[in-house]
Amino acid sequence: MKYTKTKIFSAVVLVASFIGVNNFPVMAHDYFSPIVDEKGNISFPTDFRLSMVHLGSWFVPEGGASGFHDVYTEKSSAEAYRKTGQFPDGATLVKELRASKAGTYTTGANVSYATEDLKQWFVMVKDAEGRFSENPIWGDGWGWALYKPDAKTVNVAKDYKKDCLGCHIPAKDKDWIYTEAYPTLHAQ
Amino acid sequence: MKYTKTKIFSAVVLVASFIGVNNFPVMAHDYFSPIVDEKGNISFPTDFRLSMVHLGSWFVPEGGASGFHDVYTEKSSAEAYRKTGQFPDGATLVKELRASKAGTYTTGANVSYATEDLKQWFVMVKDAEGRFSENPIWGDGWGWALYKPDAKTVNVAKDYKKDCLGCHIPAKDKDWIYTEAYPTLHAQ
Repeated sequence: MKYTKTKIFSAVVLVASFIGVNNFPVMAHDYFSPIVDEKGNISFPTDFRLSMVHLGSWFVPEGGASGFHDVYTEKSSAEAYRKTGQFPDGATLVKELRASKAGTYTTGANVSYATEDLKQWFVMVKDAEGRFSENPIWGDGWGWALYKPDAKTVNVAKDYKKDCLGCHIPAKDKDWIYTEAYPTLHAQ
Repeated sequence: MKYTKTKIFSAVVLVASFIGVNNFPVMAHDYFSPIVDEKGNISFPTDFRLSMVHLGSWFVPEGGASGFHDVYTEKSSAEAYRKTGQFPDGATLVKELRASKAGTYTTGANVSYATEDLKQWFVMVKDAEGRFSENPIWGDGWGWALYKPDAKTVNVAKDYKKDCLGCHIPAKDKDWIYTEAYPTLHAQ
């Protein structure tokens, strides 16, 4: 039996379809990052709750940042961190802030959980090569972005040194990330 | 150019390898559930933090269940829920309990996060067909399991009505699941 190029292409498409290639996460690291353009603009990563893995969560009881902070990255980035102790080039971190509610449950009193009320998202993209030195949202090994629910297409951060870095200074020795709260980075 | 069966097989394997078929989640629903045997015994789902999606988290400040409760399911199960409002047959829910720490952060005072200190896991498997009526860990549409860190191979729950159901009664009208805390079930 002879096989034409067309038949082979069809077979490959069939196999790819069968194993669900359409649902497979975009392979970010093939071209640095799918959410960063050639000028270093960072776009909001859509539906990350279904495409990324959960690193860990924070509960902030009071103040402007109150509520749950749920943090996500690519599965491949978490796997790389487990091996190397570092986020790989192109890794995305998403920190989603949601308002919380509290109630009495069978697990205890004053139990808090995140609601549908979205507050904002912090997004960071690891840049191990210093690609965008002229873009003020890039530096110290990361691209920095902040999105609000009313305009997810707009990165509100304009200068990471003014708009972002201050809150990360206590984590400077951990590449600016509060990794103590992210158990997924440690396999078990 | 001619293509032999061997060459085509090699090409298919290459493509499958390239798109990461080895890392692809087991397709649970092809055979009900990969963590349930023919007698209805439920085994612990390993490394679910990398293979499942995060539904939401609870923070319990005090008592025996204190700490973070992080809840996970299969991506396919979350997608199905978004469409139907129900967990599909074979869906797995994992609720991981970890002790928490609290500290002052740039986000606020008394900010809590989950630690490496694992407390226990609740696992539920959706059974829409009443498969295991003679097995006392199955009933009311679910299989019920509880694992402790010192013996993840042992389902501590022996009778779901005695060991599990009591804590779920307030959520009976939502198929026993406290879905108000799981924003991933609602696309945005």
